[in-house]
Amino acid sequence: MSDTTAHSGLDGLDTPFLAVDLAVMDRNIERLAGRLRGTGIRLRPHAKSHKCIEIARRQIDSGAIGLTVATVGEAEVFAEAGFIDLFIAYPLWVTAQKARRLRQVASRAALRVAVDSAAGAQQLAEHLGDLPITVVIEVDSGHHRTGVAPDQAGPVAAAARSAGLNVVGIFTFPGHGYTPGHRAEVAAQESHALDTAAASLRAQGIDPSVRSGGSTPTVGAADDTVLTEVRPGVYPFNDAQQLELDVCTLDDIALSAVTTVVHARGRTAVVDAGSKILGADRPGWATGFGRVIDEPDARIVALSEHHATIEFPGAAPPPGTRLRVAPNHLCNAVNLVDSLVIDAADGVRHWAVAARGANT
Amino acid sequence: MSDTTAHSGLDGLDTPFLAVDLAVMDRNIERLAGRLRGTGIRLRPHAKSHKCIEIARRQIDSGAIGLTVATVGEAEVFAEAGFIDLFIAYPLWVTAQKARRLRQVASRAALRVAVDSAAGAQQLAEHLGDLPITVVIEVDSGHHRTGVAPDQAGPVAAAARSAGLNVVGIFTFPGHGYTPGHRAEVAAQESHALDTAAASLRAQGIDPSVRSGGSTPTVGAADDTVLTEVRPGVYPFNDAQQLELDVCTLDDIALSAVTTVVHARGRTAVVDAGSKILGADRPGWATGFGRVIDEPDARIVALSEHHATIEFPGAAPPPGTRLRVAPNHLCNAVNLVDSLVIDAADGVRHWAVAARGANT
Repeated sequence: MSDTTAHSGLDGLDTPFLAVDLAVMDRNIERLAGRLRGTGIRLRPHAKSHKCIEIARRQIDSGAIGLTVATVGEAEVFAEAGFIDLFIAYPLWVTAQKARRLRQVASRAALRVAVDSAAGAQQLAEHLGDLPITVVIEVDSGHHRTGVAPDQAGPVAAAARSAGLNVVGIFTFPGHGYTPGHRAEVAAQESHALDTAAASLRAQGIDPSVRSGGSTPTVGAADDTVLTEVRPGVYPFNDAQQLELDVCTLDDIALSAVTTVVHARGRTAVVDAGSKILGADRPGWATGFGRVIDEPDARIVALSEHHATIEFPGAAPPPGTRLRVAPNHLCNAVNLVDSLVIDAADGVRHWAVAARGANT
Repeated sequence: MSDTTAHSGLDGLDTPFLAVDLAVMDRNIERLAGRLRGTGIRLRPHAKSHKCIEIARRQIDSGAIGLTVATVGEAEVFAEAGFIDLFIAYPLWVTAQKARRLRQVASRAALRVAVDSAAGAQQLAEHLGDLPITVVIEVDSGHHRTGVAPDQAGPVAAAARSAGLNVVGIFTFPGHGYTPGHRAEVAAQESHALDTAAASLRAQGIDPSVRSGGSTPTVGAADDTVLTEVRPGVYPFNDAQQLELDVCTLDDIALSAVTTVVHARGRTAVVDAGSKILGADRPGWATGFGRVIDEPDARIVALSEHHATIEFPGAAPPPGTRLRVAPNHLCNAVNLVDSLVIDAADGVRHWAVAARGANT
């Protein structure tokens, strides 16, 4: 809690900005890659979390087989940068315009796309049925967002096959694992759903060779008798949610907003990082709108666009103090900046958030 | 709730994107300007909401005396674009680097800055005491974020004057007006706080010629016997929060995310707009994560980065349907896109969100 809390190479930069401790990030990337090396599970990290070419390269260099993305726009950015194996894990509604863009991506990279309805499969086949893209069926393992019930995966897969698509398996996102104390239970539901869906595909004579799951909270409990692939996104950085879910420790958090105290009274301080750099995510179980890395017992009790109000266990630090704040949900925080400030042993550099704002 | 719900000129654009109905926006801008013309209250709109040169020009053309901004970065963008009267309504902690940037802004525009502590005033005076900038003291009218207690405004103003600064008045942000049913009460608190603070300045022999308040929810009840200026931000567009606070009607909402249904089951649909285009803001009193303009009785019950889960009163619209969603808090939504899609009588154009990401 002093002017020198943040790395000295960062001192010349105006706050707020997002800083990445490169040594911690590299350790996080290698730790998960190392854990998976001894299993049959392949790693296909979700690039929506970092949106950054340099970080995706490090993931591939550590053994990832390809990338996961959420949008056609993200696929365009990573295909353009030379990534040759991309999975758009989203049940796209393929219009003529999106089809033109997907065709371009498919000319550069092996492309896998998601389907969760017969209508979506038909739409995809009409526009892109001639391409050698592969299709996986999205399954709802309990998050209740998109995806079909596990026992309906076979019929949807059969409809996709009838439309002329090459169905290679199933995937799910166990997003309901973002609840304290439920990781093992949710990982078991994920395995069970994929197992049921795999049987449903086999009943239609379709081989579910891809059985993809995994999120940062559940990846540690992934069952390698069922899953062939995992798609965590947050693990290179970690954030306040992962800390409060007991997925990581404070030392594992590689990304923070570097902020300055602008107002202090008693035990309360206000810093210059708000929802326009931290994002406004706050699940009901979170202790606040992020966590102060330099004072873990502090609580961020209010957030507006350029203010975070922090209550400290003792006297608040005075105006001018720099503090590091871990966002609750880094995927939305990273998407708010043009570049990440990389704090490395050999100095400070900037990496572009190349797919920032690639929503379509 | 059909493919043609959105204006036909928008149909060729991939979803999601933020569209502005120009006729509604122009009506909103003129309505407030007209209401204030008959009073002694001047309009200094907050540009953080739209971050857009073209919209700021329309505000000035309708009679606004200048702009309010939240950051030095926003001031740089609007000064560069030729706006000559800027107020940074934020208690900046002025470092050497920020001072260099402020000096540049002050070379182009009349600059007013905020102070809410003697330490902040001292810091400002040390770096920029030689410039002809003006200073206003931030007062806490009940929002309890930054600002001093109203009766402490005088002593802080006196400290600023002693440091060599030109104190011209006081300002407050009545952010606690963002609660249903409290607008009139909060507007009264705002007036009372500014009145008390004005007396506190006068007791120090300082003329509080600027008494600035106002937010979109409270501006309609601004007391022109106390306030000389208001700084609403959201009013050109309006959003789901303003709708649910009864500040506007559905017809007054000029900005929406145009989205596509990608998944439907029973009364539930999922669209391709999530927190990466709507923002994740959700006050406790909101009915959901935004409002569906085409079906006001629908509720957005869950939000992730690229998914909004919507419950409809009847059968959900099928995949491929386009829907317009008003974000809860448009300031954060606008900051997520590079440009706004302007839907005008003579066609569709794009306006850059020129100050997007200008956080420092």
